[in-house]
Amino acid sequence: MRIVAADTGGAVLDDAFQPLGLIATVAVLVEKPYKTASEVMVRFADPYNYDLSGRQAIRDEMELAIELAKKVKPDVIHLDSTLGGIEVRKLDEPTIDALGISDRGKEVWKDLSKDLQPLAKKFWEETGIEVVAIGKSSVPIRIAEIYSGIYSAVWAFKEAQEKGHVIVGLPRYMEVKVEGSKLVGRSLDPREYGLFGVVEFEVPEGLKWEVYPNPLVRRFLIFEVTSKH
Amino acid sequence: MRIVAADTGGAVLDDAFQPLGLIATVAVLVEKPYKTASEVMVRFADPYNYDLSGRQAIRDEMELAIELAKKVKPDVIHLDSTLGGIEVRKLDEPTIDALGISDRGKEVWKDLSKDLQPLAKKFWEETGIEVVAIGKSSVPIRIAEIYSGIYSAVWAFKEAQEKGHVIVGLPRYMEVKVEGSKLVGRSLDPREYGLFGVVEFEVPEGLKWEVYPNPLVRRFLIFEVTSKH
Amino acid sequence: MRIVAADTGGAVLDDAFQPLGLIATVAVLVEKPYKTASEVMVRFADPYNYDLSGRQAIRDEMELAIELAKKVKPDVIHLDSTLGGIEVRKLDEPTIDALGISDRGKEVWKDLSKDLQPLAKKFWEETGIEVVAIGKSSVPIRIAEIYSGIYSAVWAFKEAQEKGHVIVGLPRYMEVKVEGSKLVGRSLDPREYGLFGVVEFEVPEGLKWEVYPNPLVRRFLIFEVTSKH
Repeated sequence: MRIVAADTGGAVLDDAFQPLGLIATVAVLVEKPYKTASEVMVRFADPYNYDLSGRQAIRDEMELAIELAKKVKPDVIHLDSTLGGIEVRKLDEPTIDALGISDRGKEVWKDLSKDLQPLAKKFWEETGIEVVAIGKSSVPIRIAEIYSGIYSAVWAFKEAQEKGHVIVGLPRYMEVKVEGSKLVGRSLDPREYGLFGVVEFEVPEGLKWEVYPNPLVRRFLIFEVTSKH
Repeated sequence: MRIVAADTGGAVLDDAFQPLGLIATVAVLVEKPYKTASEVMVRFADPYNYDLSGRQAIRDEMELAIELAKKVKPDVIHLDSTLGGIEVRKLDEPTIDALGISDRGKEVWKDLSKDLQPLAKKFWEETGIEVVAIGKSSVPIRIAEIYSGIYSAVWAFKEAQEKGHVIVGLPRYMEVKVEGSKLVGRSLDPREYGLFGVVEFEVPEGLKWEVYPNPLVRRFLIFEVTSKH
Repeated sequence: MRIVAADTGGAVLDDAFQPLGLIATVAVLVEKPYKTASEVMVRFADPYNYDLSGRQAIRDEMELAIELAKKVKPDVIHLDSTLGGIEVRKLDEPTIDALGISDRGKEVWKDLSKDLQPLAKKFWEETGIEVVAIGKSSVPIRIAEIYSGIYSAVWAFKEAQEKGHVIVGLPRYMEVKVEGSKLVGRSLDPREYGLFGVVEFEVPEGLKWEVYPNPLVRRFLIFEVTSKH
């Protein structure tokens, strides 16, 4: 099975570790044995001017996933919304009302589906490829999340060169390590059986970095970069 | 404490990774230090003709657990139904209605208890051994689950000899490895502190196998066997 | 950020592994990189005469946390009650009614807040330090929990010298090891990224000990000490 999935992650934190906005949306192509990506596309957001309601993230993910899917022609697209795997092209108002989700979630999806349902329908008509709202159950979405963490570290290195200091909250239970001219992100959950991602990146001179637990949010790590100058 | 427990697991999957039916029911005797089984009994189901509602599984588990208990005389039997540890011999209609479970769960148990309650009562009267519905909290049930995964791999090797190719979904976060003339199953959750099982088995010539994440169900692995011929 | 947190843990178990009472309340000071404590205070309870409703634990934790905070002047105090991080000095009846918790939880907090709210208010007025009910999301609370497990092992060694045999249930997914003249407690969840604690302790002669899974409560270990005499 060849699956395209997208996710958004990595958050700029203030000095009290409160999130200001998200950093990177990533779309990935994942193929057997489903441990990492064979194609990756990234789009950086402006974390200082970000809609934290979750609507911006899912719109960005849908757009980027379709952009990658046009190129690689997968069997299916996974979207990070946990609606039991329903096809997004079928998300009209009565269908949303029948979902076993919160009233708040229904409102958000009624709003989102105005754009996303026609987009999914059009893409399916043209290509036969479904966009399914599978969410947290999907391994490719987790791999996209791991890549969003790696690209958030890339962003942090560049930002710290400019601003001198930046604190990033990584996606859930993953770490990022510098290994030569690569950034490697790995799931810390052994039950996920070794999910990882690799991005080529040369860390600029004059920076130091630390990875440590976010004291306010168990199982999430912080990636902090400081300029030595 | 000497505990008998039973569980059913391992699923035959189709090429879209959808489950067709379950493979193996296993009863185990677990004794201190509670990391593996000291006695094991297995009963294979017909996964191509399986009632996936969960009723077949629990009936098979009850029967097999009692069969093993007759032989090894444990202190208690653990059944894989999460009803807070209630004694199955006490599950009459008013008691089931008072349980803090879903209406759907109550219907299933009213149906099941017609057979299982008298069986548990009779066994308790004859032996003094209780059957308790403890479910996911029980370590012996997890050990039975791990053995069901190992026996599903045994089944997969035999099935692949006949059919050329078979895809099995293992129980949650466990792996199966071939180590010499043994199949070893291990929990992937380090919080479970090293739960495992071992089954003697000589892999037939001419087969190859792979273990990888199920892309549609995070934290579950797939065990795939293919004939080289 | 310098955080004081407190937690209570370690339970004496009877021979059927049922908890009789809790053993140790610990307050810790946790500082960057948030993996262990830089200051620790412990208060032992009488586990054979213990209020298991949870009220005794939280009162002990509040008192001990404030005692440590007076000494080390942290930025904030974390209390092990999962109320979304609300300030305890603000917990009056209307605020408790508005919390998204169970009716039972509201009753408990209405009772508790009679003592704890004035205590938190007074401490905040004198020092500017908030006590927040952050609960399971807090890493310092987890570190306090790990220390409560280590001190429960300390207690078990002493108790076994007197009584010959004692069974302790450790806090969730952690182990305690004797390493030279130290007791080391470590989280078994790799997603927590290496949280640990160390206590100086010389194990008395003539004792043997075992650590193994609690068969009735998955992901919890038992620490059992027996006198050789």
